[in-house]
Amino acid sequence: VKQAEPQSGEDRIIAQFRALARHPGAFGLNDDAAALHPPAGCDLVLTADAVVAGVHFFADDPPEAVARKALRVNLSDLAAKGADPAGFLVSLALAASAGEPWVAGFARGLAEDAERYACPLLGGDTVKSPGPTMVSIAAFGFVPNDKMVRRAGARVGDAVVVTGTIGDAALGLRLRRDAKVAGPWMLDAAAREFLIGRYLVPQPRNAVAVAVRRHASAAMDVSDGLAGDLEKLCRASGIAAEIRLADVPLSDAARSAIVQDADLMEAALTGGDDYEILCTMAPGQVTSFRSATAAAGGPSRNSSTGSRSS
Amino acid sequence: VKQAEPQSGEDRIIAQFRALARHPGAFGLNDDAAALHPPAGCDLVLTADAVVAGVHFFADDPPEAVARKALRVNLSDLAAKGADPAGFLVSLALAASAGEPWVAGFARGLAEDAERYACPLLGGDTVKSPGPTMVSIAAFGFVPNDKMVRRAGARVGDAVVVTGTIGDAALGLRLRRDAKVAGPWMLDAAAREFLIGRYLVPQPRNAVAVAVRRHASAAMDVSDGLAGDLEKLCRASGIAAEIRLADVPLSDAARSAIVQDADLMEAALTGGDDYEILCTMAPGQVTSFRSATAAAGGPSRNSSTGSRSS
Repeated sequence: VKQAEPQSGEDRIIAQFRALARHPGAFGLNDDAAALHPPAGCDLVLTADAVVAGVHFFADDPPEAVARKALRVNLSDLAAKGADPAGFLVSLALAASAGEPWVAGFARGLAEDAERYACPLLGGDTVKSPGPTMVSIAAFGFVPNDKMVRRAGARVGDAVVVTGTIGDAALGLRLRRDAKVAGPWMLDAAAREFLIGRYLVPQPRNAVAVAVRRHASAAMDVSDGLAGDLEKLCRASGIAAEIRLADVPLSDAARSAIVQDADLMEAALTGGDDYEILCTMAPGQVTSFRSATAAAGGPSRNSSTGSRSS
Repeated sequence: VKQAEPQSGEDRIIAQFRALARHPGAFGLNDDAAALHPPAGCDLVLTADAVVAGVHFFADDPPEAVARKALRVNLSDLAAKGADPAGFLVSLALAASAGEPWVAGFARGLAEDAERYACPLLGGDTVKSPGPTMVSIAAFGFVPNDKMVRRAGARVGDAVVVTGTIGDAALGLRLRRDAKVAGPWMLDAAAREFLIGRYLVPQPRNAVAVAVRRHASAAMDVSDGLAGDLEKLCRASGIAAEIRLADVPLSDAARSAIVQDADLMEAALTGGDDYEILCTMAPGQVTSFRSATAAAGGPSRNSSTGSRSS
């Protein structure tokens, strides 16, 4: 089945990525593997997430945005685990429709985010897909030994905190699918753009990873919806939690839409793609966590602190 | 685009893999990330390779074999870099046709190889593919600091050595595509089965990784054909190499076929999927390397030592 790919085509694709690979352990993408020198006293945190055209993104999304989403969903996992990014590998299966301009845009988006989040490309693999384009990224981070923040660890009496607003991406996806829904939601152009942007390009909270590591008893990122993800965190911790709907932080745009159509609150809580960090901590830690996240430039004013696990 | 997957379906898939995840840092696949404690004085070696149905394997290959190939192509990279396996992450994009029995077979193949090569599953991701099944694996290994064997490093005067026979998989692929070619090749059933097996399930040379680390000036695994891969190694090292065709180690099956059809020699040298280690070393190292690989149970009698880089 495997065809020898024309050397020049594969070489041109790799050349697009070579500029990203400035980490000395990437060996300029001229080797079969990368090498990382782990700092003394640190554990390596490893995560992998794939995104598929037609499932996790639209085939006509800009390639820069596809690259960002693919990397950021992984960066979000590192942030939720309290880890500092160390690098990533990318496996890219390219649909026939994804030609050189697409690859160039993808490489550009990846390069910008690798720089922004200090998470260098270390290596990877490019293959042909007879179906849709798929991007699988494995990302790596460091934490002090045994300090990875687990899902297990929440204690009875802990507060439940999120690092930003919930439901924006779920509503943004509905707008992306059918722009007409925005009429009844009474949203202006800026609000529509905000929600669609929250779906298209996640904002991983790596700036607050250290604060999570120092304050949280348990954490995970919200990718499948706050309701289901909180249930997973509780199950791993062997506890239960109560959330007051009124305490769930909403953006102005999401609040406006929900005021017009109360059923959207369920979509906001279950829709996913929030990529905020959900964590639990002793109630006495919350003020300090807010200060730390504010100092780190991360969002904190919207943290929900009203709910207690029980 | 993203649909909330039924919790029970995704849970059942993850349950198939949970039995593999016995490494303490995999946290029983109950977390967002894995944690590895790097041994003191070691670098982490990282590699990723994807395989796609219809490109790198046949859609009707047994799922156990697909799992093995997906893991072993990565294990082969670790071996060629002189690294001891530490674990892997798997991203699995499942075609609609890949139901629970397929996933169960895949998990079984993966479990057996994870055990055989002491390379535990650390985590991963399972998504739906609207196209073919794709498997992307990122694998990790350890080497003493700065001891990863590079492609760059071959020196003028070095011998060129491979760890086993070349071209079997390329001929096996032709047989897998069209069983009738075996007639003119004058192969018996055992020879046909041997060649097809070399294509279907690579035999990564992890048993000789330490010997490669101790003896080789440069190394890579042969995945795209000996001719092209040697050219890549030479380019990275800034040298050139000469190979005498008569010195390229061939299996009895491949030799029989080539005797009948001399054009098959080109297929053997360019076809790829050999997953032997190609390395260079000072001529004085070759005997010691042969002994070390023989002691490690790896193939060594077929090593080609007649060629010199120049």
